[in-house]
Amino acid sequence: MSSADLNMSRRIRRTPYTDRVEYHGVKGFSVVNHMLLPKAYETSVEDDYWHLRSQVQLWDVAVQRQIQISGKDAFRLVQLMTPRDLTGFKVGECRYIPVIDENAGMLNDPVLLKLAEDKFWLSIADSDLLLWAKGLKVGMNLQVQVDEPDVSPLAVQGPLSFNLMSDLFGSEILNLKYFEFGKFEIFGTEQIIARSGYSKQGGFEIYLDGSSFGGKLWDLIWDAGQQYDIRPGCPNLIERIEGGLMSYGNEFTRSNNPLECGFNSLCHLGDKFEYVGKAALKKIAKNGPKRMLRGVKFDGGKAPPCKQPFPVTTNDELIGKITSGIFSPRLKYNVGMSMIESGHWKVGTEVVVHTPDGKARNGLIAKFPF
Amino acid sequence: MSSADLNMSRRIRRTPYTDRVEYHGVKGFSVVNHMLLPKAYETSVEDDYWHLRSQVQLWDVAVQRQIQISGKDAFRLVQLMTPRDLTGFKVGECRYIPVIDENAGMLNDPVLLKLAEDKFWLSIADSDLLLWAKGLKVGMNLQVQVDEPDVSPLAVQGPLSFNLMSDLFGSEILNLKYFEFGKFEIFGTEQIIARSGYSKQGGFEIYLDGSSFGGKLWDLIWDAGQQYDIRPGCPNLIERIEGGLMSYGNEFTRSNNPLECGFNSLCHLGDKFEYVGKAALKKIAKNGPKRMLRGVKFDGGKAPPCKQPFPVTTNDELIGKITSGIFSPRLKYNVGMSMIESGHWKVGTEVVVHTPDGKARNGLIAKFPF
Repeated sequence: MSSADLNMSRRIRRTPYTDRVEYHGVKGFSVVNHMLLPKAYETSVEDDYWHLRSQVQLWDVAVQRQIQISGKDAFRLVQLMTPRDLTGFKVGECRYIPVIDENAGMLNDPVLLKLAEDKFWLSIADSDLLLWAKGLKVGMNLQVQVDEPDVSPLAVQGPLSFNLMSDLFGSEILNLKYFEFGKFEIFGTEQIIARSGYSKQGGFEIYLDGSSFGGKLWDLIWDAGQQYDIRPGCPNLIERIEGGLMSYGNEFTRSNNPLECGFNSLCHLGDKFEYVGKAALKKIAKNGPKRMLRGVKFDGGKAPPCKQPFPVTTNDELIGKITSGIFSPRLKYNVGMSMIESGHWKVGTEVVVHTPDGKARNGLIAKFPF
Repeated sequence: MSSADLNMSRRIRRTPYTDRVEYHGVKGFSVVNHMLLPKAYETSVEDDYWHLRSQVQLWDVAVQRQIQISGKDAFRLVQLMTPRDLTGFKVGECRYIPVIDENAGMLNDPVLLKLAEDKFWLSIADSDLLLWAKGLKVGMNLQVQVDEPDVSPLAVQGPLSFNLMSDLFGSEILNLKYFEFGKFEIFGTEQIIARSGYSKQGGFEIYLDGSSFGGKLWDLIWDAGQQYDIRPGCPNLIERIEGGLMSYGNEFTRSNNPLECGFNSLCHLGDKFEYVGKAALKKIAKNGPKRMLRGVKFDGGKAPPCKQPFPVTTNDELIGKITSGIFSPRLKYNVGMSMIESGHWKVGTEVVVHTPDGKARNGLIAKFPF
């Protein structure tokens, strides 16, 4: 999508950083949560992959909208929305939580931030989770406010992000453990920075509160990053698949339950607390899931782009479809993610992957990370 | 967005007609409800405008997803979701309904179809209304099922659609009044066809139930349409604005209430039934809305594309922003839609429209349709 095409509609929102990413030569956008997500710059996915693993990148991830749940019943509503046990969850921490419906179907997989005992943000993937939270609120008459604040995350990812961020915000930022956040002064305002991000190369996400500071924040980091060879970037398909970072809408949808996604450890099935979908999830757990998300590594040279899912077979039986797949220049084979049907998901199982170039490629079921 | 770019992700769904629209030379897509909406073909918006007004076009509008609400409490849930009085709403009819949240903010503006006393479809604009319906269902413990069936609308629009559709489905289809639907046999299956569509030129929407028939249905209509100079098309910006067809996410969002959108006649404020947001809406009605959606006609020659809203002023005071605007080759002036602040929305009010080419253009507040 060129920016010329997509700006025709206000419905697809620009972010506070869109002017900057256009200036830096963004080559395409995707749409997530009715908003623009940069998809590629002037360099190749492979080149960006190596750069992300060794240097530092600046990513416009404002599409990760925040659903703010606050008020007397805030904790109650948040716990109702997820099978993950939130006992002991402290202010200043982040948690990755599956959110499920009454049938245990996945509705989203946000990162939950606890801002105060009665105030939470859900940093969401691509579905209007605000409507689900509001529906439950209204239906149950809960004493909460559910809103989308003017918060636009900007990610600083890659190993040199630690140097860069401590240059800018002081060495105390290095004390943040993974999935912890702190408050830092930026332009005279107090802003939340978390040690987190949609890569496995380390980094931070700045939850910028206030769109009007967007360009200024981008420039601040960009200028300070020059000595670290900073580049504009975006979630990298190779790095994401290697690291086992799944994507809602791709690897799993509302048709999948969290056990199929491998979230067993995030699913409390005891009597400690209630949540929406618990009865359905307990039943699924009892009978065992029918499919399971797995890695698939496969050969036959560089696979073509995975524009539509690649069928995965064993003995001519269809046992899955690769929903994200690409060649890893580091591992020298193709890596993919697929839900695999019951009876076939054991690591090491031999499979065949069928790519649109007509090739039948030998592969193996693998675990994450590759 | 070229198809090469966007197919990289399964998250943005193809429709059952995407293969066909690609074959017919689609030039770009937008994304609505996580799905592809064709945006342009090889001809210009102006050329398509004239063609739509005189001939017949085939539109892939599968993005109009159906939220199916069925079961014992189905009517109750649907009426809870809208201020529009559904008393007397009969099977076989369609209704345009505002859907609002607890603050009377607009969540969507679907077309509601009554399939049976206990079965409804909401044919939605761009927000995950399924999550709202499900949230209310779960929160209120209603006895309903809320699902997205495998239904993909295909629109046949333009004055010659009546000839074409009666050729294909018999003259009984001409008995359908505007916003009525009937059941017709297609490929041995029973399918719903409504007299409706997102244009003011007349036409039908086929609510195809069963993705696998998509290509075949497209071909059936395409072939029969040859004698009527049928073209592939999509909602036409000139025709839409002239006709006063607003678009959720563009002209109005969750920040707007239905009175601001001009939906007074669709808002029951009496004691006949309850719905979510009624108290908030009554309060707004009592104090009067703070802004109102209006047409704006303005001169100064052909305006540039409305990529970002055009400010509307009067005596240097900002009173609105045109969210959709374009030159009408028929009316010979620019037409736009804007929320206009209180005190300024009287039809005939003189305004100035500021376009990104630096021009200050004289304009007038107008009513719909132009």
